[in-house]
Amino acid sequence: MSKVAVVITDMFEDSEYTQPAEAFKKAGHQLIHVGLKSGVTVKGEKQGTPVKIDKAAQEVKVGDFDALLIPGGYSPDKLRVDDHVVRFVKEFVESGKPVCLICHAPQLLITAQVLKGRKITGWKSLIQDIKNAGAEFIDQEVVEDGNLISSRSPADLSAFIRACSKKLK
Amino acid sequence: MSKVAVVITDMFEDSEYTQPAEAFKKAGHQLIHVGLKSGVTVKGEKQGTPVKIDKAAQEVKVGDFDALLIPGGYSPDKLRVDDHVVRFVKEFVESGKPVCLICHAPQLLITAQVLKGRKITGWKSLIQDIKNAGAEFIDQEVVEDGNLISSRSPADLSAFIRACSKKLK
Repeated sequence: MSKVAVVITDMFEDSEYTQPAEAFKKAGHQLIHVGLKSGVTVKGEKQGTPVKIDKAAQEVKVGDFDALLIPGGYSPDKLRVDDHVVRFVKEFVESGKPVCLICHAPQLLITAQVLKGRKITGWKSLIQDIKNAGAEFIDQEVVEDGNLISSRSPADLSAFIRACSKKLK
Repeated sequence: MSKVAVVITDMFEDSEYTQPAEAFKKAGHQLIHVGLKSGVTVKGEKQGTPVKIDKAAQEVKVGDFDALLIPGGYSPDKLRVDDHVVRFVKEFVESGKPVCLICHAPQLLITAQVLKGRKITGWKSLIQDIKNAGAEFIDQEVVEDGNLISSRSPADLSAFIRACSKKLK
């Protein structure tokens, strides 16, 4: 089964974490929560879902994992100011291993400067940011381009989870 | 005195609204709160400061005002998906009238596609978005470029208010 890193901090969109996490665990995959500081508990924006951070980004390397999940909400905005998180995301995208992105998650890839020439979707507030980063924004429930699997919002979660699950071994 | 439009919705950074608003009103300027829907009360992210929306963006035009203030927080992310708000901000920037921006406010100017060739500052999470939009990001407490006056965060508020106040007649 796969070891999935979840890059997450406060104000994540609850369902964009809980639903993929539940599906991945049910399928036997292991989740490791990577954030700004290990041992702290972060919370979702709307329901306050608690998530314990297993490792700070500076303590992990891409080789330790098989796939990456980045939930949306305002968590990506808070994570993209941290150089260790940005470095981890950049190396993950460049590794070719599956990267599952939803909602505001593309913000992290913009800061990591790894979107040029890629096809992606995301929350509609990011459309111009995604285009300015040199990517093609596609308005559909799931966009797959190489190792990037992206969706727009909680309404796309079923299709998102289905597409991501197919990439996990 | 000046009529200042404040473009705002839920999850604004409280102090980035309350402190400029207090200073502008004390100097005799009039504030008109422009948002997604008139008559509703929106709230700040951390202190829950209530702000009544006077006009929806579709009900106003730049000619009705002398200056624009855009507080930060997550309010700009929520406003930039509304075509009327984006049109209003775009026309304001192009009018040459003062536009006061702090923290996440540049996100609205990115969606409005009016940042190319401009000098600006803002919250550090936006640095790559601002550069990708063709603007020059400058890391200082206030950046003035023509009619654009911008600051980074609540820590810059004193300098921000001083710079903006000078532009109001």
